Amino acid sequence: MKVYLYEANALKDYVSRFFAQLQVPMEEAKIAADVLVSANLRGIDSHGVIRLHGYYAGRLRDGRIDPISKLTLVKETPFNLLFDGGNGLGPVIAYWAMKRCIEKASQTGLSMVGVKNSNHFGIAAYYGMMALPHGMIGVSLTNSRPLMVPTYAANAIMGTNPICLTAPANDEFPFVLDMATSVVSLGKVQYHQKKGEPIPQGWGVDGKGDLTTDPIDVLKGGGVLPLGGDDLHSGYKGYGLSMMVDLLCGVLSGAAFGMEVGHIHEAKPSNVGHFFAAFKIENFIPLNEFKSRMDKFIQNLKNAEKARVRERIYIPGEKEFEMEQERTQKGVPLLEDTVESLSKTGAEVGVKFDITCLSSEEYKEA
Amino acid sequence: MKVYLYEANALKDYVSRFFAQLQVPMEEAKIAADVLVSANLRGIDSHGVIRLHGYYAGRLRDGRIDPISKLTLVKETPFNLLFDGGNGLGPVIAYWAMKRCIEKASQTGLSMVGVKNSNHFGIAAYYGMMALPHGMIGVSLTNSRPLMVPTYAANAIMGTNPICLTAPANDEFPFVLDMATSVVSLGKVQYHQKKGEPIPQGWGVDGKGDLTTDPIDVLKGGGVLPLGGDDLHSGYKGYGLSMMVDLLCGVLSGAAFGMEVGHIHEAKPSNVGHFFAAFKIENFIPLNEFKSRMDKFIQNLKNAEKARVRERIYIPGEKEFEMEQERTQKGVPLLEDTVESLSKTGAEVGVKFDITCLSSEEYKEA
Repeated sequence: MKVYLYEANALKDYVSRFFAQLQVPMEEAKIAADVLVSANLRGIDSHGVIRLHGYYAGRLRDGRIDPISKLTLVKETPFNLLFDGGNGLGPVIAYWAMKRCIEKASQTGLSMVGVKNSNHFGIAAYYGMMALPHGMIGVSLTNSRPLMVPTYAANAIMGTNPICLTAPANDEFPFVLDMATSVVSLGKVQYHQKKGEPIPQGWGVDGKGDLTTDPIDVLKGGGVLPLGGDDLHSGYKGYGLSMMVDLLCGVLSGAAFGMEVGHIHEAKPSNVGHFFAAFKIENFIPLNEFKSRMDKFIQNLKNAEKARVRERIYIPGEKEFEMEQERTQKGVPLLEDTVESLSKTGAEVGVKFDITCLSSEEYKEA
Repeated sequence: MKVYLYEANALKDYVSRFFAQLQVPMEEAKIAADVLVSANLRGIDSHGVIRLHGYYAGRLRDGRIDPISKLTLVKETPFNLLFDGGNGLGPVIAYWAMKRCIEKASQTGLSMVGVKNSNHFGIAAYYGMMALPHGMIGVSLTNSRPLMVPTYAANAIMGTNPICLTAPANDEFPFVLDMATSVVSLGKVQYHQKKGEPIPQGWGVDGKGDLTTDPIDVLKGGGVLPLGGDDLHSGYKGYGLSMMVDLLCGVLSGAAFGMEVGHIHEAKPSNVGHFFAAFKIENFIPLNEFKSRMDKFIQNLKNAEKARVRERIYIPGEKEFEMEQERTQKGVPLLEDTVESLSKTGAEVGVKFDITCLSSEEYKEA
C-alpha cells in the first residue's frame, strides 16, 4: 500500500473548508480542523482526518450533530463551570470549554469544568496542552461509547475513557500523558484482523468474557480489556480508571455514562461528557523551579540504564513531539485508502480533495 | 499456618499504645493506629499492622522519623496549601493535610494540597474517603520509593505511586479506587517466591529488563512492571500514570521524586511527597442527583451480563467495604508470623502484645 504526504497547513485548510461546507461557521471549522490534523501531526492517525467522515461529516449531514456549536453555561461557581454542549461539534465544544477553564484559572489559580451533551472530541492531549503556555498543569478527560469489557463482564459496556494530564518542562519536552484506559484501541484489533493475524493474549475477550487471540471474536460481540488485561494482570485497575473518568465526565456533568453513551452510528445524540481542569503551578512552587525539577525528573529517567536491546527510555508525549517536528517538515502521511475515503467524502459533500501531494512512498510498518 | 483473629478496636488500642511508647503523642498515635488497622479491616493486610516494625517503629526508634509530627505551612493561596511534613509520621501528616484540604474545600468549594518531607502514609484510600461525608470527591496520591521498572528501563527507578479517587453513592457503597500504578505489588512477587512458584509472565523483569517468571530475578536487581506489563500490553501507560502521580506529589511539592525517594532502610529521611484534592459535587450538580446517578452507574455495571464462570462484577472499593463489615464483626485475622513479629517488636519497644485473641483457624488461601 502507498502513503501520500501532505503539508499540514494545506490539510488544515482543506478540513476547514470541508466543515464550513457542512454549515459549520468558518472560525469553528478551523478549530475542528486544527484538532484533527494535530492528531495526524502527533502520529495519532486513528484520531486524525481518517475520522472526518465517520465521526463528524456523516453525523453533521444527517443532523445528528448540530453544525452551529453553542456552549451554554449551566452553572458557575468561583472555580467551576458546567456547560451544555448542545450536541455541537466535539472538538469545538471542548476547545471552548478548556479556553474558559484556563481563563478562570488565570484569575483564580485553579478551575474545573464539566461539559455534557457533547460529541467525540478527538485527542484529549489537544486540550490538556492548551494549559502549558500558561504555566499550568492541564487535565482533559472524556467518556466514550462502550468499547471495553469490565473485569468479569461478558460485553463491552464501558468506554475507553482516556486520561490526559500535561505539565511543562524547561529543556525537555512537556510531559503529555494521553492514554485510553483500555489495553489497546479497537483499531489495533481491527489492524490484526485485516492482516489475518492473531492478537496477543490479554488484549480482548469474546462475547462470553473468555480470553481470546482471535480478533474476530473481539470485534463480534466481545471487546477490548481494560489496561492490565485479565484479572491476573490487574485489569480491574484499568476498569477502575475507566470508571473514574466516567464518573467525572458523565455522572458529574449530567451527560450519559457507561453503556448509555451514544454510539456514533446511532440516531440519538451521543451525549458525551468531558471534564477539564487547569491550575497554576505557582500556587505551589515557582514555575521556573518546577520546570527545572521536571527536567531533572525526565533526565534521570532518560539517563537510567536501558533494558537489553533498548536504546531509549521514553517520556509520555516525547514520541509525539518528535513526530510533530518530523511531520511538520516532511508532511503528514496518509494511507492510500484514507486518501480514497477523503476523495469520496469530499465529492459527496462538494469540497473536492484536491490539495497538493508533496510526495508518495511505499507504506512501511512502524 | 494458623490465623489469629483480634477485635479491631483492641488492635487499634494496642497500636496506639505502641506508638505512644515511641514518643508519639497519644492523639497522633491514635490517628496512625486507625490508619493501619483500617487497612487490615479493608483487607489490605500488606499495608496494615504487619508494617508496624519495618515502616514505622524501626525508623522512629533510631530517629529516622520524628515522633513529634509537625505540619508546617509553606504556602497558601485561596485554594491551595503546601505543607512541609517535617519528616513526621506519614499517616499523621497525611491525615492532617487532608483534613485541612477538606476544611478549605468546605469554604471555597475546591482545594488542592501538596505535602513534602513526609513518610509512607499507609493506604491512600483512608484519606480519599475522608472527603465522602462532606459531599465531596476526594483525591489522594503519594509517591513511593523506587520499586517499578519503567518501560525499556533495566532497573526499578520509579515508585508504585498509587492513585486514589473517591465518590459517594446513595444505596451502593461509595466508589473508592485505590490502586498502585504497577501491575502488582512486590509483596505478591515475594509471596510466589516463598511458595516456590513462578510468577505470571508480565509481572516483572530481571536486572537486564528482560521479562521473567522467576520471582527471584524480580526481587534481586529487577522489579515489577508498570500496570499493563510489557510494551505489547501497553505497560507504558502504567509508567505514564506513575510519572503523573510523582510529578504531582514529588516535583510539584518540593519533595523527592523518582529514584530519589528514600528507601525505608536508608539512613536519610525518605522525603515522600503527597497530593490531596477535594471538591464539592454541588459545584456541578445537586449532591442527591449525583448520588442517584452513581447508584445507576454502579447498578448498570453490576446487573450486566457476567463472563462465563463469574458470578459478580465488582466496583472499586466494594470488596473492601464488605471485608470491613465482616472483619468488624468477626475480627481482624493476623497470620501466625505477623503475630510473632508483633510480639517480638512489642517486647523490644516495651508494650507487650497481649491483647485477647478472639479465635484461631487454619490459614486458607484467598
